[in-house]
Amino acid sequence: MGIVVQKYGGSSVADATSIKRVAQRIVATKKAGHDVVVVVSAMGDTTDDLIDLANQVAPLPPGRELDMLLTAGERISMAVLAMAIGTLGQEARSFTGSQAGVITDAEHGKAKIIDVTPGRIEAALAEGAVAIVAGFQGVSQTTKDITTLGRGGSDTTAVALAAALHADVCEIYTDVDGIFTADPRIVPDARHIPRISYEEMLEMAASGAKILHLRCVEYARRNDIPIHVRSSFSDKTGTWVVKTEDVIQEGSTMEQAIISGVAHDRSESKITVVGVPDKVGEAAAILRALADAQINIDMIVQNVSAAATALTDISFTLPRADGQTAMTALARLKDDVGFERLQYDDSVGKVSIVGAGMRSSPGITATFFQALADAGVNIEMISTSEIRISVVVSDNQVDAAVNAAHEAFNLGTDEVEAVVYGGTGR
Amino acid sequence: MGIVVQKYGGSSVADATSIKRVAQRIVATKKAGHDVVVVVSAMGDTTDDLIDLANQVAPLPPGRELDMLLTAGERISMAVLAMAIGTLGQEARSFTGSQAGVITDAEHGKAKIIDVTPGRIEAALAEGAVAIVAGFQGVSQTTKDITTLGRGGSDTTAVALAAALHADVCEIYTDVDGIFTADPRIVPDARHIPRISYEEMLEMAASGAKILHLRCVEYARRNDIPIHVRSSFSDKTGTWVVKTEDVIQEGSTMEQAIISGVAHDRSESKITVVGVPDKVGEAAAILRALADAQINIDMIVQNVSAAATALTDISFTLPRADGQTAMTALARLKDDVGFERLQYDDSVGKVSIVGAGMRSSPGITATFFQALADAGVNIEMISTSEIRISVVVSDNQVDAAVNAAHEAFNLGTDEVEAVVYGGTGR
Repeated sequence: MGIVVQKYGGSSVADATSIKRVAQRIVATKKAGHDVVVVVSAMGDTTDDLIDLANQVAPLPPGRELDMLLTAGERISMAVLAMAIGTLGQEARSFTGSQAGVITDAEHGKAKIIDVTPGRIEAALAEGAVAIVAGFQGVSQTTKDITTLGRGGSDTTAVALAAALHADVCEIYTDVDGIFTADPRIVPDARHIPRISYEEMLEMAASGAKILHLRCVEYARRNDIPIHVRSSFSDKTGTWVVKTEDVIQEGSTMEQAIISGVAHDRSESKITVVGVPDKVGEAAAILRALADAQINIDMIVQNVSAAATALTDISFTLPRADGQTAMTALARLKDDVGFERLQYDDSVGKVSIVGAGMRSSPGITATFFQALADAGVNIEMISTSEIRISVVVSDNQVDAAVNAAHEAFNLGTDEVEAVVYGGTGR
Repeated sequence: MGIVVQKYGGSSVADATSIKRVAQRIVATKKAGHDVVVVVSAMGDTTDDLIDLANQVAPLPPGRELDMLLTAGERISMAVLAMAIGTLGQEARSFTGSQAGVITDAEHGKAKIIDVTPGRIEAALAEGAVAIVAGFQGVSQTTKDITTLGRGGSDTTAVALAAALHADVCEIYTDVDGIFTADPRIVPDARHIPRISYEEMLEMAASGAKILHLRCVEYARRNDIPIHVRSSFSDKTGTWVVKTEDVIQEGSTMEQAIISGVAHDRSESKITVVGVPDKVGEAAAILRALADAQINIDMIVQNVSAAATALTDISFTLPRADGQTAMTALARLKDDVGFERLQYDDSVGKVSIVGAGMRSSPGITATFFQALADAGVNIEMISTSEIRISVVVSDNQVDAAVNAAHEAFNLGTDEVEAVVYGGTGR
């Protein structure tokens, strides 16, 4: 049998008891005949505690030292996990990102993996050991300094190792049974999704589904590594994230679902630049200022100008944490660009429907918007991709919008067959 | 000016406040024109906490993984210290033992340094940065695994780096002002020792003076690195540990003190093997059994046999933590060696007087033993070296013995001149 890469997040290794449970699962996988490589995050709140400690001595710690500090977290969890596996009679060896051959660029705090040379991991597997690798970290190719990969870093480490080792599967363990058609805390009859394509998962992740990070899904898609998202608290099959062809092949008589799920995101704010002269280059100047301030904007909407004034409004959404920085950067542009004023709104939420079947099914937008209207939800912004429709609504209308969309596309447990067979009469 | 290596122990970097204070001292040293290399231990109780965590999942954690775990402690302290220095406007870069070029053998938990290749440290100094190095750790030359140096490891790291970098001095910071003629908690008028020779310091360390580890002093002696033991809570000059010639040269009109200090040690137990047949090879068999059990014994005494029985008793002291292991190993020998029984006593203490002047001064032993007798202290075992006399006494007589010796050799603050000038009439 082949190589299985398993990734356990911080909540799966929060304390000694959890670590012992994870160790048993790993040993069971090894006993089933697989070579096992485990990628592990820091225990529970360790990373936050270390950041707190850093902030006690330095308001703006240098990236190199912050990375050195934070990588202590995975060092602890991986060593303790290796010990717990050893207690079960199975040898396990822990490896830092550097030892595992995770080579990155030198961008501290958000390094990108540029190569994986897992020679020591292969040697450990060849000798019958389980290899435990620190997630979230690597070593810079140029400076030889320790780096961290930033958000979603441990998932990305797991997929990158799976690709470099030609693993059969990358299992991402979390505290839920996989991906659902909507957040079950908001939609009680949300349905478990057994299979989903990389493309849909990417749109779900970009739309606020926090279970897998964009970056890890993109890495898996590029290298065609099947991801199995599942719970570390149960043995249930989770959600497989695979090639589009493999989603469709699963049930040979089925068509693909038109809408796979409804995602939402409350982490963004909306900024509107009001009264921008409708001239060539004005929007570019605004976006350039935001890019220079290292701000990633998400949705962006420009209205047609009112003919009488030749003024337009430009609205965009961005991570709430970047709101103040963006407002400051834009305020500096006021005289150059000549806009009237800035509006800042942090009580917004984004609701998205995602589905590969959308490509070939007209009328999806109309159904979605009608459902929102019937639920009394006001749409503030709209953005679409080939397989996603997103709207920005008021923060306090997010739950209503998610439920309305979920129901409109019959994503609930009992009515799923109708959706899969395309029987909703759109 | 040259390179100064400073080592700060766990109590000097116990929390954010302590770390900031240490950072100021480091920056002051740098501003005084020195290149500064700092070796740091784990913060406060971190190492103990990590060992507790390990024991929660594994009663006997594998050495490789325990080392991986424990080295997280220095990783945290060194990164936070580098940040604190950065906040003061001085660049600092932290390095793991491996990055600093501390190459060891592969004996996990008690690795020996076999080479130091501090290329990255030299580069950091050349660029004007302060280099912060994790104490207590290195990397195995053969396996490339992370190792720890065991007891006294951080002090040894500091001295080894000082030697490799040809530093002017290795400053060991602690929570007291240096070495005293006796433990001031036991002897209120114990005197601060401004200079002491490597040889005397070695005997003091071997006799229970915990302030410097044997191993670090030996490394310094072999490489002729002056050690300055001082407090991180004051600016006072501490104790210089130097070559014998440099001790004497300090005050040109002075002779060296005959007795430098009184050390004591309550960490040992005594085992007596009673009724050993007085034949060739019996003592060797006993010591072999202890060596095979990885036990380091300290003092060993064999009495002449009672002529009538041709039986003798062999007593030795050993670390209290090894007592149970030793008793088990010896019990297995009972039939082969044919001894009568084993006696175990963990309520013993060792009191030693140390002084290079002892070589040329007869009568020291007599003075010492008379003082003990006058104080009502019963001597259970005796052992001597060229510059040390140690006795084992009952645990509850240690304080009395230390005070008696301290007074007999006039080591107290007011009478020091008399000792230094050899005026005590021995």
